[in-house]
Amino acid sequence: MRKNTRRRETPSLRVIPIGGLTEIGKNLTVLEFQNQILIIDCGMSFPEDEMYGIDVVLPDFSYLKNPQKKIKGIILTHGHEDHIGAIPYLLKEINVPVYGTRLTLGLVKSKLDEHGLTARLNTIKPGDRFRLGMFSVETIRTTHSIADAVCYFIETPAGSVFHTGDFKIDYTPVDGEPINFTKLAEIGSKGVTLLMSDSTNAMRPGFTASERFVGEKLTEIFSQAKSRIIVATFSSNVHRLQKIIDISAKYNRKVVISGRSMENVVRIASELHYLKAPKGTIITINEANRLPDKKVTIITTGSQGEPMSALARMAKNEHKSIQIKKGDKVILSSTPVPGNEKTVTTVINTLIEKGADVIYSDIAETHVSGHARQEELKIMLSLIKPKFFMPVHGEIRHLLAHKQIAVNLGMKEDRIFIMENGCILDMNRNRARKLSEKIKVEDVLVDGLGVGDVGSIVLKDRKLLSEAGLIIAAAAIDRKACRVVSGPDIISRGFVYVRENEDLIDEARIVVENTLEKCMKKNMRDWNAIKQAVRDDLRGFIYRKTERSPVILPIFLEV
Amino acid sequence: MRKNTRRRETPSLRVIPIGGLTEIGKNLTVLEFQNQILIIDCGMSFPEDEMYGIDVVLPDFSYLKNPQKKIKGIILTHGHEDHIGAIPYLLKEINVPVYGTRLTLGLVKSKLDEHGLTARLNTIKPGDRFRLGMFSVETIRTTHSIADAVCYFIETPAGSVFHTGDFKIDYTPVDGEPINFTKLAEIGSKGVTLLMSDSTNAMRPGFTASERFVGEKLTEIFSQAKSRIIVATFSSNVHRLQKIIDISAKYNRKVVISGRSMENVVRIASELHYLKAPKGTIITINEANRLPDKKVTIITTGSQGEPMSALARMAKNEHKSIQIKKGDKVILSSTPVPGNEKTVTTVINTLIEKGADVIYSDIAETHVSGHARQEELKIMLSLIKPKFFMPVHGEIRHLLAHKQIAVNLGMKEDRIFIMENGCILDMNRNRARKLSEKIKVEDVLVDGLGVGDVGSIVLKDRKLLSEAGLIIAAAAIDRKACRVVSGPDIISRGFVYVRENEDLIDEARIVVENTLEKCMKKNMRDWNAIKQAVRDDLRGFIYRKTERSPVILPIFLEV
Repeated sequence: MRKNTRRRETPSLRVIPIGGLTEIGKNLTVLEFQNQILIIDCGMSFPEDEMYGIDVVLPDFSYLKNPQKKIKGIILTHGHEDHIGAIPYLLKEINVPVYGTRLTLGLVKSKLDEHGLTARLNTIKPGDRFRLGMFSVETIRTTHSIADAVCYFIETPAGSVFHTGDFKIDYTPVDGEPINFTKLAEIGSKGVTLLMSDSTNAMRPGFTASERFVGEKLTEIFSQAKSRIIVATFSSNVHRLQKIIDISAKYNRKVVISGRSMENVVRIASELHYLKAPKGTIITINEANRLPDKKVTIITTGSQGEPMSALARMAKNEHKSIQIKKGDKVILSSTPVPGNEKTVTTVINTLIEKGADVIYSDIAETHVSGHARQEELKIMLSLIKPKFFMPVHGEIRHLLAHKQIAVNLGMKEDRIFIMENGCILDMNRNRARKLSEKIKVEDVLVDGLGVGDVGSIVLKDRKLLSEAGLIIAAAAIDRKACRVVSGPDIISRGFVYVRENEDLIDEARIVVENTLEKCMKKNMRDWNAIKQAVRDDLRGFIYRKTERSPVILPIFLEV
Repeated sequence: MRKNTRRRETPSLRVIPIGGLTEIGKNLTVLEFQNQILIIDCGMSFPEDEMYGIDVVLPDFSYLKNPQKKIKGIILTHGHEDHIGAIPYLLKEINVPVYGTRLTLGLVKSKLDEHGLTARLNTIKPGDRFRLGMFSVETIRTTHSIADAVCYFIETPAGSVFHTGDFKIDYTPVDGEPINFTKLAEIGSKGVTLLMSDSTNAMRPGFTASERFVGEKLTEIFSQAKSRIIVATFSSNVHRLQKIIDISAKYNRKVVISGRSMENVVRIASELHYLKAPKGTIITINEANRLPDKKVTIITTGSQGEPMSALARMAKNEHKSIQIKKGDKVILSSTPVPGNEKTVTTVINTLIEKGADVIYSDIAETHVSGHARQEELKIMLSLIKPKFFMPVHGEIRHLLAHKQIAVNLGMKEDRIFIMENGCILDMNRNRARKLSEKIKVEDVLVDGLGVGDVGSIVLKDRKLLSEAGLIIAAAAIDRKACRVVSGPDIISRGFVYVRENEDLIDEARIVVENTLEKCMKKNMRDWNAIKQAVRDDLRGFIYRKTERSPVILPIFLEV
């Protein structure tokens, strides 16, 4: 006979994606057990089109600032901006130790230096196990488009979580250190409660090609080239940089490093011995300019067509020391990040106009993705064999595609959780459920030194200003005497070219004059009412004349 | 013995692309013979990213407004916006007859009606020959992603020009009227001096699939669908619309037409019998809402993710009569136009969030291009066998790829001309050369009712305003007494959210106060010098505090 005692359930583990879900970027996942928190990654994202003037976007740290929460540490999967970029901003608010592999922390440190910060950085190696409060963490080597990437297996009394980070399954990576399959299988046999796995390429069938493949393509190009070669790629792809340097050395080319972030990464990666160039291979542009073209490779930033990047400046003849010459072979070893297609095309066309021979993803396979495709995702799911599954890192369509893959492998739909930022998964070894309550998370916008001081109202103003500019009607008014003492003056910016539209501005002034006169005659003394009257009349006049709606700003000074 | 008489050379023919070269859009080509001008197409383009607030971009008509030029007519290749969109603007400046096929002119007329214009519209048919001044014009049927597209063969005393317009080689178009190969071969045998041929897909190998192919794919989807089907496509693709209506009728679905331009095109194409729907097939949304979902097809605009389009409004729950339901099958029968990738993805994700099953180009081949690929371009070059060749309609990389195709077919490089807008090709039957002089052509920006009143200065202001907003420092000053009578007041828009940053604004006011005080003490009376001092001090202060550079606008009223 069963005893009728109600066993108290063990406390549950909560998994909360604060950022990074339903969009790419600003990854930050919270694991919480009995008020103890472990943070996985702390990334930033780049602004959307309508985020005028915004430099970067951060995840919302509000939940982490609750003094009742005990934050045990941040563990980092790899050194890409969307996984480490927000660390300086978090550390300014909360002092918490950071754990990552050598290259990842090398990149973090360079960020902290820029912000004038120091921090408790703890270097870990693949294979390491360590304890942070109630979280027992194991580090497993994986492969991605940056060296030194890891997955994490995190055990708690309420169950375990396997987080892949960003990954692909590369059997032949450039550093000869493939993903640790054996370890994954071992962990899978132990039993994983929840798998969180990268969904970026979940809509793409097949396998992502090995980084080695790019090496072969580049070798082919280098072996035939008689001209200068300029390769633009992601500065963080240290393996790719290594390969380009190796191939250059093989074909007797010296290498110039161009672009601030490229120089920065090459310095850090060289110091940490992730990048090894034969002595004398890396030279300055001045030294290169004295060599024959066929002896020179330039590795540069700008593979996304960023207007201020080294490559874009070369293309526009605005680079201080590198000019594009007829015959230069320019290789874009990248594919456009979604949203950058047009800027990349613009740079390509500008380079072609200057006579360069441009090789890019439409023409040759000079890039491979760093993310696992469907067949690789199946391998991960099959090795880890989780009880529950949360697709992460991707837009909603990618998450759903990843879910479908798991369903096709036989996983029950109700064990798969499609989350949004701020959603809470409450789980233990036996059950998991998405709570109906959510944590409030908002994009935190960084503009210059300001973090979070630009919100939707300011952005709306910037949008309005950008669409039709503004018109200011300024006057000095003696309110007691109900008399306009000076003005009204009409000043416009971003509206029309004033010199060619003097009549329009004159007429606008008369409109405001008439409105003010009416207000004065009526003895109106309410500042806001007068402003509203001017705004209405002027807006109506401008729209009738131009069908535009500039921002109208009445400025009245009391004298 | 040869006689030493110098034969006077016959007058030459000039071919001048005013718009449409080195970028897609605003096609306008001028043929000029002895001051007589024939215009081929008159299109507009959509604004680039940095053209804040601009509605459309027109080609530069300056050259055509020279009273010495006798403009004989505009001949239109087809009814796409980038070939007809600028006609109302040109006709407002120059009264000139317009020639085009029935559907093309139907679309032109609807544009003219919107602008309240009438014009001399002359309907032509494929096969027609007519004379415009010294230009003898022959019209040849071609195939493209809009019905009723034609090529032109134009003969002049100085040689002949064959202009393909936009084309693909479709052996099985929906209307059963394939491109007229025989005629092309005949014209080729007669001898063509210059070929101008569509380069859009010159980088793509192989053939573009027939429009029929899309029909088959759609039939496959319709035959299995149990839910409502919403198809978003280009309104101008009348053949595609016909096919969707036919397939709907076949599977017992009624059809709703949604979106302003879709309704407009369907009305025009039906009136002209280019579109034939079985009686009772097309119904209103209210009627559709009373039918079971599996009986309803909705054809809508918004296949490019345009935020104000019917599809985007449905996705965001902002459409007044159509809501997306779980299970709706949404087909994007299109591919993103370059630059629109991100907006299309956003709409797709929003639809998926609402529970729709979205089928788009990444998932199924629900679209084919309207432009010829490499093998088709070879056919055109081989049929026309021109003496000289000018690749048109494409970015520089497409033009150069098209040139390479001609070179591979054995054409001499010096007979192929890569032009830019405003370049002049001077030719006769025996020779052609690109002149060193160019016609000045500028993008003409349309903003509301204003044509050309927004130039680079205004755009630069809009850009600056959009990036960091503006700060106004306003004061009333008694210049004679050197005394600030009122203010300074600080007003900002799009800079920071003022309520949360009162201190910063207060400090800014003190900075301006101090500067003004200094100016007054020095008895400065030069308005500009005072403004400059305020601008410099305030800019410095704001940058130190925020690392931002808003537009700073000192407004001083004299009292």
